Amino acid sequence: MTTLVIGANGQIGRQFCELAQQAGVPIKAMIRDAAQAPWFEQRGIATVVADLEGDFSPAFEGCDEVLFTAGSGPHTGADKTLLIDLYGAMRAVDLAAARGIGRFVMVSALRAEDPQAAPEKLRPYMAAKLAADVYLKASTVPWVILKPGRLTDEPATGRVAASLEETGGENTVSRANVAQALLHLVQARDLVGREFRLLDGERPIGEALA
Amino acid sequence: MTTLVIGANGQIGRQFCELAQQAGVPIKAMIRDAAQAPWFEQRGIATVVADLEGDFSPAFEGCDEVLFTAGSGPHTGADKTLLIDLYGAMRAVDLAAARGIGRFVMVSALRAEDPQAAPEKLRPYMAAKLAADVYLKASTVPWVILKPGRLTDEPATGRVAASLEETGGENTVSRANVAQALLHLVQARDLVGREFRLLDGERPIGEALA
Repeated sequence: MTTLVIGANGQIGRQFCELAQQAGVPIKAMIRDAAQAPWFEQRGIATVVADLEGDFSPAFEGCDEVLFTAGSGPHTGADKTLLIDLYGAMRAVDLAAARGIGRFVMVSALRAEDPQAAPEKLRPYMAAKLAADVYLKASTVPWVILKPGRLTDEPATGRVAASLEETGGENTVSRANVAQALLHLVQARDLVGREFRLLDGERPIGEALA
Repeated sequence: MTTLVIGANGQIGRQFCELAQQAGVPIKAMIRDAAQAPWFEQRGIATVVADLEGDFSPAFEGCDEVLFTAGSGPHTGADKTLLIDLYGAMRAVDLAAARGIGRFVMVSALRAEDPQAAPEKLRPYMAAKLAADVYLKASTVPWVILKPGRLTDEPATGRVAASLEETGGENTVSRANVAQALLHLVQARDLVGREFRLLDGERPIGEALA
């Protein structure tokens, strides 16, 4: 029951890995570069070195679930959005399908279903996330999609909301809460074919994402 | 039986519109800007002004087929590749599905099915084209996909090939031949669910794309 964490060295990825390790949830952190390994090794987290832009199929060995939390980030260009957020996700889905992976947990984005409604600057990113989500849903792989709002570095509260109605329009969520929500999703193995929005809020995670 | 031409003012789009008009094939050229209209009007080609990045649903009025030959081109950034080549195509497919459009003819790219195999510089573009093709195929809209090789400005020969084996690896095709091939596809209304590669070659278009 090992979860391959794609994007493990990202801000959310690291927090998730640490939580999963503490909770005894078996994971394998996929990292691009062996130089990223010590952070994980110091915490007893298994790693595999593989490049999302190369052949990363060996990373799937021994895994029956995938958590995709890779993102090219705001400091690279849209070419990387195409190669990482879109095409990296598509290839991960293809590999998951070919290997009969039990479930694919995708970190998407709030309102990715409607890029047209996003601020102009965010639209290309949202289009990539939408296409990746659609690709996953059209695949043979059982899936869960988490759509966090605007990410912040606030500490975890463990209290979230699953809609903008619930928050009165507040659209932020801390990366720490996202990591906790991912831990919940990875542990709730019966959740399949579900899409959840995620914002900071008032409810326990297990209740909001049920 | 009118075909909405999305990307009509592009290099292939213009050549296709001219051929279609000469052949008496009913088309409507979708253009972004009224300033682009005179070129079409001088040739008796019907136009509709609509923005692929805005609400272009009114352009579909009276059309029962879509030809998508829009591309952001090599002189804009990858953000436009995401907004035009990927998301513009996805929205055109959505609109076509919502309106029960009879067929969607997509101009894709040779080897878009395997961006990983493309030269690094082209990979983001190929990923966008792949995702758009997959989206179209997964939709309810009947489709045909044309995948031209590297485009040139050579004159039309009317002679093409449908595989790299056939050309001995030569991967180019003139825009003029692509326009002729599109005219063939638009007229061959029984072609559905087919994908054709297109290169300059030796065979008549109707034979290569049969």
